[in-house]
Parts: sequence; C-alpha cells; structure tokens
Amino acid sequence: MKQIKIFSPATIANLSCGFDVLGCCLDTIGDEMKVSLTDTPRISIEIINGANLPTDPEKNVAGVATKALLEHLGKNVGVHITITKGIKAGSGIGSSAASSAGAVWAVNQILGSPLKAKELIPFAMEGERAASGNAHADNVAPALLGGFTLVRSYDPLEVIGLPSPADLYATVIHPHIEIKTSDSRSVLKKNVTLEQAITQWGNLGGLIAGLYTNDYGLIGRSLKDVIIEPLRSILIPAFKEVQYEAVIAGALGCGISGSGPSIFALSKGREIAHKVGQFMGEVYATTKLDYDIHISKINPEGIRVIP
Amino acid sequence: MKQIKIFSPATIANLSCGFDVLGCCLDTIGDEMKVSLTDTPRISIEIINGANLPTDPEKNVAGVATKALLEHLGKNVGVHITITKGIKAGSGIGSSAASSAGAVWAVNQILGSPLKAKELIPFAMEGERAASGNAHADNVAPALLGGFTLVRSYDPLEVIGLPSPADLYATVIHPHIEIKTSDSRSVLKKNVTLEQAITQWGNLGGLIAGLYTNDYGLIGRSLKDVIIEPLRSILIPAFKEVQYEAVIAGALGCGISGSGPSIFALSKGREIAHKVGQFMGEVYATTKLDYDIHISKINPEGIRVIP
Repeated sequence: MKQIKIFSPATIANLSCGFDVLGCCLDTIGDEMKVSLTDTPRISIEIINGANLPTDPEKNVAGVATKALLEHLGKNVGVHITITKGIKAGSGIGSSAASSAGAVWAVNQILGSPLKAKELIPFAMEGERAASGNAHADNVAPALLGGFTLVRSYDPLEVIGLPSPADLYATVIHPHIEIKTSDSRSVLKKNVTLEQAITQWGNLGGLIAGLYTNDYGLIGRSLKDVIIEPLRSILIPAFKEVQYEAVIAGALGCGISGSGPSIFALSKGREIAHKVGQFMGEVYATTKLDYDIHISKINPEGIRVIP
Repeated sequence: MKQIKIFSPATIANLSCGFDVLGCCLDTIGDEMKVSLTDTPRISIEIINGANLPTDPEKNVAGVATKALLEHLGKNVGVHITITKGIKAGSGIGSSAASSAGAVWAVNQILGSPLKAKELIPFAMEGERAASGNAHADNVAPALLGGFTLVRSYDPLEVIGLPSPADLYATVIHPHIEIKTSDSRSVLKKNVTLEQAITQWGNLGGLIAGLYTNDYGLIGRSLKDVIIEPLRSILIPAFKEVQYEAVIAGALGCGISGSGPSIFALSKGREIAHKVGQFMGEVYATTKLDYDIHISKINPEGIRVIP
C-alpha cells in the first residue's frame, strides 16, 4: 500500500469536569487526509482549504508529528500529506489534533501498522506541542482511539479508553469569534480551593461511572465544571444563555469544548441532539455572530480509512 | 421481628486519590450490634466494650442516627441498641460510621425495611455529624452499600455504588497513636494548585475505570495522592517506610485510611495481602508502638444480619 485516504475526526476535550484529562471523539466533522509514500526522503504538506495553515513540514503539526514518528521507527522514507480541513482552526474541537493524529495514524497504516493506535499518541502529541506549546493528549487520544478517553497520567503517559453509551450524541455550536490561546490561559488561576477540587473529582468519577453503566442521567448530572467554566465562559458571548437553552431543549449537560469558543452538549438520542442544536442556534441567531452547528454520534472507532 | 443482631463493618475512606468521595467496605473487622424495639418510646444505648463512648442517645452516634431516622419515618417507637465495638475509636477505619450506619440499617430492617439501604445514608450521616461536626458520607456509604462507593455530590446527595474486583483484598495496619481531628484538619491547606488537582482527578478516574474493568494494575497505578497524603502522613510515624514495605511486598498501592492513623494497602489475592501485613508490621515491630493488623476481602454486601 503506497497511499491511504482517511477521515480524522474532531474531538471534544475537557468535557466540563475532566479538564486536561477527558476527551471524546466526534463522527460527522473532521479532516480528510491523503497520505502517500514518496521516493525522496522528505515530508511535504499540501493544504487544500485550510486558510493560513503552514505547509512547511517543520511548522505544520501533521509534519511535526510525522517526523517524530518516522524518527522513532527509524524509517528514512518520504511522505506526502494532503489535508482537506473540515475543522476550522481555533474552533475548540481539536483541529490541530485531527491533523496530528491523522498523519501518524495514516503513516503507521501505510507502513504496515508497526505500532498500535495507543502507541501513536506520543507522536501526535508532538504536533500538539507545535500548535500550542503544550503537548496535551486530550484531543489526540480520542481521535486515535475513538469513544471517550481518560489521560490518567502524563508522566508516565497512560491513556485509558472508556466505553460510550450507544445512544449518546454531541451537539457543538461554534460561534465565529477568535479566542487567543494566551487569553484562554491567562484567565485560569494557578490555585483552586480544595472544596472546588473535591466537587470536580466527584463529578469526574460520576461521569466515568455513568459511561460504564450507560446511565445517561448520571452522565448529565456529572457534566459540571466549577473550576474552569466560570473563568473561561466570560470569553464566550452568551455562553450562559446557550447553556440554559441546551438544557431546556433536553441536553444531559452542556459546557465549553476544549478551550472554546465552541460549546458542546451531550444528549440521549439524535432527535434531542438536533433540538438542542436548534435551541442553541436561536441564541446566536439574535446576534450578529456567525456560527456553525454540528450534530454527531460519539464515534467509537476514531480515525478511519475512507474510499 | 422485634430484635435483630448485625455485623457492621469497618470501612476505608478516601483511598488515596478519592479524598472525601471514595470509600470501601471491609469484611473481617466491624462492630456487632443488637437492636430491639421496646415498649417505651425512647432510645437507649448499651456499650459492651467501647471505652469512653457515651451511652446518652443524644450524644452516641448510633442514638443520633436512630433518632433522625425515626423522626423521618414518623415512628414513635422505643429502640434499645447494644453495641459490641470491634473497631477502635479514632483508628481511621470508620468506627463512628459503623455504629451510625449499623443502627439505622438495623432499625430499618426491624421496621420492615421502609427505606432502601441508599436512602439510609442521610440518617447515618447525622451520626457522623455528631462524631466529628462534619456529616460526611464516605464511611457510612460503603458500610451501608458494600463494595466501593463514590459520593458524586453532597448537594444534592448522590452516592454511586462501584463494582469491586473479586480478588481484591485490603490490609490495614493501625498504629496505636492518637491523631486529634483538629490536627488532621489543620494540616490541610485551603488551596491546591490546579496542576495537583488535575493529577488527582486523573488518578481518581483511573481508579474507577480499574474497578469497572477488574484491572488490578490500573487500580494500583491510580492509588496515588499528591494533595492530602504529603500533608497528613507527617502525623503518622514511619508512614513512608510502611508504604514502601507494602509495595515491596506486592501491594497494588498503599495510603492513609481516612484521616489516619491507620494505613491501608490493596492487593490482588489473600496471600499477597498477608505478606503485605507482615512487611508493614515489621516496620512498627522495630519501634515501641503497638499496632493491629487486619486483612480483609472487600465486602460486597455491607452490613449483614448475623445469628
């Protein structure tokens, strides 16, 4: 096999109570990537529609991740990567992760799968480091493994795949504003109260228990964030209204996707997820903000080959 | 049925990464209690061997919990409770919780089980409030429900029963020192760093995932506490040595039971749990401290009727 075409999905990181540790994989939105082996041992990147993304393989996250993987494997091969972005950069649903994870997944496939999906995470994380200065795993892990993932530890890295109830759907609304990474970080506080932390880890435990037992109600009651959301939500216009409308429409819970500005909601069933999207959209429809809405089943498999 | 005799087990709260939210139920150590309905509508308490425990039902935790339950049920009956303590007060393995939970469980049984075990938690918590000023649930919940329990939320109260791998054993060593509640609280800090909190909730998530998947290794890797243990362990003589020896002997993990001074370890299998006890004991054997060692399977059912 000398060429492969893949779909690399968007992901929701943090999921309210799981800041920096939880993520889940979407199914209906993502990037398409074509990866082929070439004769000259260099990495080249071609971007079809990603405005302003670098094609220099030392700067493009897919190039950085691919280089890290090839070095690890000791493979002196050439790789050409064509990326058709379906995820808008800076939307908060794992745009850089889709490119990084997709690149290493495809290259690994084309080389005969020397590594398992989980073993690819550290190389995809190098792409994340290039994108944001922080080699986080909470988007690349669900993109590579599908479903929900928990980063139990970074040192040493341990990622755990969590089950996902069959009828769980995500609704994501992306208001077209830019939140600078520096702003989304600077609003965070270095310290939290022990009481807040206890509330947060009680909810994280509840969410994980809910995923294992298909308890949609418990998942919903656990989707709370008393630490990050109160600080970051001020950067997102009408966040509270959108959250309120999502719950009124029947969502199990609603919070900030990654570091925003996208807002996610989880619902039981496609029908409610669509209604949630409609209610969320009506909030922004009364403003001058443009926005996209995505409705997606949780994707249990992650990145996949497409024809 | 006018009289019932029960075994009310000891419990381990916190379990390293689950401060204030996790607990598990032991099987070989606990209190025996006899509860009978009487003709005169008053609560009376008889203590067989619990040194210095009050028999005034307004002060004894079993009396306080019973009174709260009877008031809720609107039952104007008399109850006589005889407690044979098997758990030493102040040992950190849920002595007050065993009495509180045992009392409400037995009274509920004798009245024809108007409430489910989970519904008894708030009344047992009133006993905890009387004992420590804090109506915590992380000991009474596992005593009442068995296995592992998660307090997802206190407001409103939601407790989740978690599964327990069949071959999981606890070793508890109780050095005979007194840690004042005021001391075990005053060493805690009001604030923690966000980074510590993330580490802690990653481990809590890992522990819960390990319980659902019978992954003993994951349970062990998750039994870490970067927040409370570094502060409280200084109150427990030779804590680090005991912890080290437990792990050398094959324990999955080891930490402070409740607020101490008992130290717990979890192991896979009875044989390792015994070896862990032996290694732990050897640390205190070189000191002048007296100590008890308990080896117990995790008790999946909680409080039980005995002949």
